[in-house]
Amino acid sequence: MSGPGPLITPTLERVQTGVEAFDELVMGGLPRGRTTVVGGTPGSGKTVFATQFLAHGIAHDDEAGVFVTFEESPADIEANLSGFGWDLAGWREAGRLAFVDASPNDSDEMVVGDFDLSALLARVLHAVDAVGAKRVVLDSLAQLFDHFIADQTLVRRELFRISSALKQAGLTVLMTAERNSEYGEITRHRFEEFVADSVVILRNVLGRERRRRTIEVLKMRGSRHVEGEAPFTMLAGRGIVAVPLSSLRLEQHSSSKR
Amino acid sequence: MSGPGPLITPTLERVQTGVEAFDELVMGGLPRGRTTVVGGTPGSGKTVFATQFLAHGIAHDDEAGVFVTFEESPADIEANLSGFGWDLAGWREAGRLAFVDASPNDSDEMVVGDFDLSALLARVLHAVDAVGAKRVVLDSLAQLFDHFIADQTLVRRELFRISSALKQAGLTVLMTAERNSEYGEITRHRFEEFVADSVVILRNVLGRERRRRTIEVLKMRGSRHVEGEAPFTMLAGRGIVAVPLSSLRLEQHSSSKR
Amino acid sequence: MSGPGPLITPTLERVQTGVEAFDELVMGGLPRGRTTVVGGTPGSGKTVFATQFLAHGIAHDDEAGVFVTFEESPADIEANLSGFGWDLAGWREAGRLAFVDASPNDSDEMVVGDFDLSALLARVLHAVDAVGAKRVVLDSLAQLFDHFIADQTLVRRELFRISSALKQAGLTVLMTAERNSEYGEITRHRFEEFVADSVVILRNVLGRERRRRTIEVLKMRGSRHVEGEAPFTMLAGRGIVAVPLSSLRLEQHSSSKR
Amino acid sequence: MSGPGPLITPTLERVQTGVEAFDELVMGGLPRGRTTVVGGTPGSGKTVFATQFLAHGIAHDDEAGVFVTFEESPADIEANLSGFGWDLAGWREAGRLAFVDASPNDSDEMVVGDFDLSALLARVLHAVDAVGAKRVVLDSLAQLFDHFIADQTLVRRELFRISSALKQAGLTVLMTAERNSEYGEITRHRFEEFVADSVVILRNVLGRERRRRTIEVLKMRGSRHVEGEAPFTMLAGRGIVAVPLSSLRLEQHSSSKR
Amino acid sequence: MSGPGPLITPTLERVQTGVEAFDELVMGGLPRGRTTVVGGTPGSGKTVFATQFLAHGIAHDDEAGVFVTFEESPADIEANLSGFGWDLAGWREAGRLAFVDASPNDSDEMVVGDFDLSALLARVLHAVDAVGAKRVVLDSLAQLFDHFIADQTLVRRELFRISSALKQAGLTVLMTAERNSEYGEITRHRFEEFVADSVVILRNVLGRERRRRTIEVLKMRGSRHVEGEAPFTMLAGRGIVAVPLSSLRLEQHSSSKR
Amino acid sequence: MSGPGPLITPTLERVQTGVEAFDELVMGGLPRGRTTVVGGTPGSGKTVFATQFLAHGIAHDDEAGVFVTFEESPADIEANLSGFGWDLAGWREAGRLAFVDASPNDSDEMVVGDFDLSALLARVLHAVDAVGAKRVVLDSLAQLFDHFIADQTLVRRELFRISSALKQAGLTVLMTAERNSEYGEITRHRFEEFVADSVVILRNVLGRERRRRTIEVLKMRGSRHVEGEAPFTMLAGRGIVAVPLSSLRLEQHSSSKR
Ligand SMILES: Nc1ncnc2c1ncn2[C@@H]1O[C@H](COP(=O)(O)OP(=O)(O)OP(=O)(O)O)[C@@H](O)[C@H]1O
Ligand SMILES: Nc1ncnc2c1ncn2[C@@H]1O[C@H](COP(=O)(O)OP(=O)(O)OP(=O)(O)O)[C@@H](O)[C@H]1O
Ligand SMILES: Nc1ncnc2c1ncn2[C@@H]1O[C@H](COP(=O)(O)OP(=O)(O)OP(=O)(O)O)[C@@H](O)[C@H]1O
Ligand SMILES: Nc1ncnc2c1ncn2[C@@H]1O[C@H](COP(=O)(O)OP(=O)(O)OP(=O)(O)O)[C@@H](O)[C@H]1O
Ligand SMILES: Nc1ncnc2c1ncn2[C@@H]1O[C@H](COP(=O)(O)OP(=O)(O)OP(=O)(O)O)[C@@H](O)[C@H]1O
Ligand SMILES: Nc1ncnc2c1ncn2[C@@H]1O[C@H](COP(=O)(O)OP(=O)(O)OP(=O)(O)O)[C@@H](O)[C@H]1O
Ligand SMILES: [Mg+2]
Ligand SMILES: [Mg+2]
Ligand SMILES: [Mg+2]
Ligand SMILES: [Mg+2]
Ligand SMILES: [Mg+2]
Ligand SMILES: [Mg+2]
Repeated sequence: MSGPGPLITPTLERVQTGVEAFDELVMGGLPRGRTTVVGGTPGSGKTVFATQFLAHGIAHDDEAGVFVTFEESPADIEANLSGFGWDLAGWREAGRLAFVDASPNDSDEMVVGDFDLSALLARVLHAVDAVGAKRVVLDSLAQLFDHFIADQTLVRRELFRISSALKQAGLTVLMTAERNSEYGEITRHRFEEFVADSVVILRNVLGRERRRRTIEVLKMRGSRHVEGEAPFTMLAGRGIVAVPLSSLRLEQHSSSKR
Repeated sequence: MSGPGPLITPTLERVQTGVEAFDELVMGGLPRGRTTVVGGTPGSGKTVFATQFLAHGIAHDDEAGVFVTFEESPADIEANLSGFGWDLAGWREAGRLAFVDASPNDSDEMVVGDFDLSALLARVLHAVDAVGAKRVVLDSLAQLFDHFIADQTLVRRELFRISSALKQAGLTVLMTAERNSEYGEITRHRFEEFVADSVVILRNVLGRERRRRTIEVLKMRGSRHVEGEAPFTMLAGRGIVAVPLSSLRLEQHSSSKR
Repeated sequence: MSGPGPLITPTLERVQTGVEAFDELVMGGLPRGRTTVVGGTPGSGKTVFATQFLAHGIAHDDEAGVFVTFEESPADIEANLSGFGWDLAGWREAGRLAFVDASPNDSDEMVVGDFDLSALLARVLHAVDAVGAKRVVLDSLAQLFDHFIADQTLVRRELFRISSALKQAGLTVLMTAERNSEYGEITRHRFEEFVADSVVILRNVLGRERRRRTIEVLKMRGSRHVEGEAPFTMLAGRGIVAVPLSSLRLEQHSSSKR
Repeated sequence: MSGPGPLITPTLERVQTGVEAFDELVMGGLPRGRTTVVGGTPGSGKTVFATQFLAHGIAHDDEAGVFVTFEESPADIEANLSGFGWDLAGWREAGRLAFVDASPNDSDEMVVGDFDLSALLARVLHAVDAVGAKRVVLDSLAQLFDHFIADQTLVRRELFRISSALKQAGLTVLMTAERNSEYGEITRHRFEEFVADSVVILRNVLGRERRRRTIEVLKMRGSRHVEGEAPFTMLAGRGIVAVPLSSLRLEQHSSSKR
Repeated sequence: MSGPGPLITPTLERVQTGVEAFDELVMGGLPRGRTTVVGGTPGSGKTVFATQFLAHGIAHDDEAGVFVTFEESPADIEANLSGFGWDLAGWREAGRLAFVDASPNDSDEMVVGDFDLSALLARVLHAVDAVGAKRVVLDSLAQLFDHFIADQTLVRRELFRISSALKQAGLTVLMTAERNSEYGEITRHRFEEFVADSVVILRNVLGRERRRRTIEVLKMRGSRHVEGEAPFTMLAGRGIVAVPLSSLRLEQHSSSKR
Repeated sequence: MSGPGPLITPTLERVQTGVEAFDELVMGGLPRGRTTVVGGTPGSGKTVFATQFLAHGIAHDDEAGVFVTFEESPADIEANLSGFGWDLAGWREAGRLAFVDASPNDSDEMVVGDFDLSALLARVLHAVDAVGAKRVVLDSLAQLFDHFIADQTLVRRELFRISSALKQAGLTVLMTAERNSEYGEITRHRFEEFVADSVVILRNVLGRERRRRTIEVLKMRGSRHVEGEAPFTMLAGRGIVAVPLSSLRLEQHSSSKR
């Protein structure tokens, strides 16, 4: 199109999530330095996916992580996720993982009608510094955003500001988002999926009394990715295990053809 | 994944509900010290399920219980549930069961526009102390929360605070929630199911003029569980009797395989 | 479950409605001293059902009744229901039936923004005393509740208070509720069916240009009941005539089996 | 039920509409002295039906009529309906028909936020006196009621008051109501169909590019009526011509049978 | 019905639209001196239809026209419609067509909260005088009405006033209206289709990746018309070309038959 | 119709988008000097399409461009789009492309409750001058418009003003718009698609676990265009590649035929 430009160059560096078949879907992993939103209904596996992303960074890529939790206490997170074989407590003690507990009863900084995310952001960046983190998880912002249901633009801008600030710090961010239904309308706040650079959707669909879990990359700005839903399961001792798509439907035409 | 971590260790202690086939679905029972939300439409069996959970604790596990009721009077509860063979009145007199009557005409503590759950919480914890309770039922919070329909975050935070306080007291809590339809949108307040550690759904579906009741574990943080709907019935003298799933679809791969 | 408790004991005394096949569905009638909500779309038969309940009490069980009407005048009620063979006027004159006319043009007690049901309650209890009533019909509260559409909790609490007060007076209460569609969302105010002890639904479904009427017991706290829809018709001189279910699907397992 | 009462006695006197097959559906006509709401989508035939009701009264039953119009001018009504063979202008001049023009530009009595229907009611009753009318048509109240969309109870009460006042004057009233869809939710204001004594629905359904018109009696308090939809057409020179139901599904059991 | 009245007399004079097959559907054209609303989704052809109506008047019936535009500039209209072979610019210069540009940046008369259409009406009537117009197009009022979304009655009354004023001036008016979906709910403001004398709907339906355009007369007060959808296409040099219905389903019974 | 007018004359000059098969659909390209809205769900390809439109102008038609970005930073845009072979950074340095960064953290000019687009417009026009741009992309206005969700008319007017101002400057404008679902309701703000001169829709439909991308011209004022959906894919090194419709369903009747 514009002469011999850089073709199929993966301009975006990748961060492995540890969900192997998923990393294949997205050309190696989540884009480094970007924000990925992982949306899903209750129990769809958002927290498991997010933790696996951190655990893989710590255990395999030597990348420390920060887990910002808004409703589950760090102790609960550690207990809940230990079944998957992730030694969160050990890593925390070893200084490779830090928690930021942003749950209501832990801090009173949240003021109705005069909302400011600066204090939260400062705590997150401080934790990042403390462990030298490269990966950050926010699980989930919904609790904050429900505050401002009446002022959508404000929420949108704050969401934008948080991801901008973390992006500028070179961090790869994974934020979870609440979806009220499996298909149909997007997230609770309706625009997270427009604002984010990448969107991954976890589904847990009830059909004929059986549940079926799937993962889908809805979008990934600046990157090819396999499209459509891939089934997955959650295994004790392993976490999320996605099924590699039998047929990768990537149309890889030679770009010089035109 | 992260070396030899604790695999398939059931980190969460279990509390039997007394619904045998259900306890099998959830690896032995509800997680001790956690909050489980039981959602359902009118008459779906929420109160029966919750009472059976208390009754089983008292009669079989020597665990006293507290029943917090928001609209049905304790006397009505006792009368309504006696048909299932549970001697609530006897247990109450024997000091193994306590009621907290939080219905409107019993207390005037509820002030519109200046809502505070502290008084309620104090009464509940006092009752817990009085009988040495290990299990608590709240049936149902909807009446409180309808107050604050306009301030979703406030409700969400209060819901979070109640379960946190009860969790800190080491109690296993079962809260009922109102759902307006069998499938589709989640609970009335839309976020109980995100906030809770575990969510169980009771359905009462009308198909071709016949009703069909099912129970489903929607999520259980930190735990495997059988997925999908299991049929149940309510029998006089027994309570809820679920049908064990013929094929337990639990993929139990050896976790050392990877 | 808890040793040899009282099995299949019908702890709830029953009040016959006069709709024979319906009384069979609910183990003999509506629970005495409780509130039953009868919901339905316009013309579904709510008023006929409610009147039949009163008429049967007066003519067959020697139980006087009070009919609280919110929009139809007592004279209209008497005229409209005479076609079914009920001599409401005669009973009224004989002091076995009393009307409370709570329609707007009859009383100015309804004040926007400062709503109080006490006066209404006083009038109802006075009428109950006057005729020594055992049965009360309120048809329908919707007109009152539309007032407070913005404050759902207030309405819910008032609804709760009315039924509590009448229950304390030992009365068996039947309240009608407006439903906007045959299936799907519950009543107009969305919570009557959660608050009531028993819920009966009258449907009038249009299919292929034909109407089909059915009655269903959605819930009955503390009682077994046949589940699912039973067809009915309205006959001049008789009122509602339900079709007995050919197969009573009541699973009556011996409760000693366990 | 209550001994030998008056069986199948048509307690309600009937007023013929002039739509023959329709009058058969409702045991002879609309109940005299009552309010019937005729609901339908735009162009469904509400005004034609209402006018035919007046025209039949004037031309065949020697009953004068009053037509209260809220948006179409009397001149337009006369022109639009002349195609059906009704000489509205002639009858008006002969003093057998009176128009009340309540359209906005004709009167300034409508004040936002301080609404009072008394003036309108006075004008209607004055017109009734002037021609000695027995039948009144209001086409349609929607324009008034849109005012008060935020205060449903007020509208409901005003609607109740208008019909009460006209009923007390012994008039047979036909009010048209706007419905936004053919099936599903009831009228625009959601409760007209609960308040009215009788409800007739005109439908104009699009199926496979063809329109199909039907008429249905949704309810008629105090009266039997054929249920379900009956097809109709509008013929020049005749008005609405309904198709008599081939099989009158009236279950006329002998009422002495019980 | 009322003796030998004027049967099948086309009491309403007709105005040809220039869409031949459409004029056949409506017994010769739109009713003279009346308001017709043409509703449709974006790009459904509302502006083309409206312009064709004006163009036909000017070129074939020697009736001058006024085009009131609310968002497209007159220059754009002229350019956009020239492809259909209509020399709008030429006619404008020849004094047979006048534009009223009511777009926001052209006039500041629109004041939020204190809305008055009088100035607009004056400009339209002035343009009508200037060219001696018989036909007026308003395309589209939506922009004005969005203002008052909170006060539906106000909009309804203003809509009524505009059409009344133009009707009194003897003009044949065509107003376009925005519909958000092809089938289902009526127009954006929900009542235009009740207020107007005639309603025409343009549809542009997507089925199996193909679009299909249809035109339908939803209602025409005071007139017979063919019912149901007729397919059409838009041809360069011709405008809208509707397909004559193969079978005119007009039931033309002899009206003397009764 | 009006004699020998200019037939099939493409009165609107065309601007190639660089998506070859798409340009064929729209008779050569987007209308010069007009506003085209490109709507789609998250990740549907709005930004890729918009950039390709600019890139093609710069690389093939020697038309400079301005990219106004509201949430993605220019650096991110450059990185994300480089995979398609477009050297945005190079063009920017060569003065053939300018960015206007209107994202929240870049400017504080956005004031809640006192919104004014003048400053933004000035910046855009300044950038246009700086590079001598002929094409402008705004991606996307949603962030601005969410502000004014309560005042739809204001947004509509502002949207109108922006496109008018840019149109008057002779620019060809492409604005992206957010759609919440693939089919069904139009854009988030509900009226962009009515206001714009041309509307293009990008869809990304999930069917049986597979995604399918299509492009459709919903409307193009003043122009013929192929109707219906055309499939497309996004190829590294090329951008959007649409599939030419096998059968161009353009009814090209000779216009002299009539
Ligand atoms: N050890 C385990 N083995 C297998 N499955 C497990 C295990 N632990 C948890 N799960 C599954 O993971 C689910 C919880 O997932 P997770 O907490 O990630 O959901 P979530 O999307 O974060 O939900 P929420 O919105 O409630 O936070 C459980 O409901 C269960 O189905
Ligand atoms: N003795 C009994 N035998 C069999 N079934 C019974 C018995 N008692 C109650 N039931 C069934 O249980 C239902 C009531 O269940 P329950 O009160 O638990 O419902 P719920 O979900 O709490 O409803 P609500 O929202 O109204 O409180 C009754 O409608 C009936 O169908
Ligand atoms: N004598 C009769 N014989 C047969 N059916 C009758 C008779 N009288 C009334 N009906 C039927 O009963 C219906 C009215 O029922 P009813 O007044 O109980 O309805 P409802 O649910 O109270 O309606 P609403 O919400 O309007 O008050 C009539 O529409 C008619 O179908
Ligand atoms: N002379 C006629 N012959 C046949 N059909 C006619 C004749 N006049 C009118 N109609 C039909 O009647 C319809 C108008 O009916 P009517 O005015 O009663 O509807 P409506 O329900 O009152 O509508 P609205 O809500 O718009 O007032 C026309 O659309 C047309 O289909
Ligand atoms: N010269 C032409 N030849 C064929 N079709 C054309 C021509 N010009 C326009 N069209 C068609 O007409 C459509 C535009 O129609 P029109 O402007 O009347 O729609 P509208 O309903 O007024 O839309 P809006 O609500 O956006 O104003 C174009 O999308 C195109 O499909
Ligand atoms: N180099 C590439 N090769 C192939 N496909 C790519 C490439 N880069 C991006 N894509 C595809 O393009 C999508 C992003 O498209 P784009 O950013 O234009 O969407 P958008 O409609 O602007 O979304 P948003 O509303 O989130 O801004 C990615 O999700 C991916 O599917
Ligand atoms: Mg989670
Ligand atoms: Mg209950
Ligand atoms: Mg009734
Ligand atoms: Mg009408
Ligand atoms: Mg248009
Ligand atoms: Mg984008």
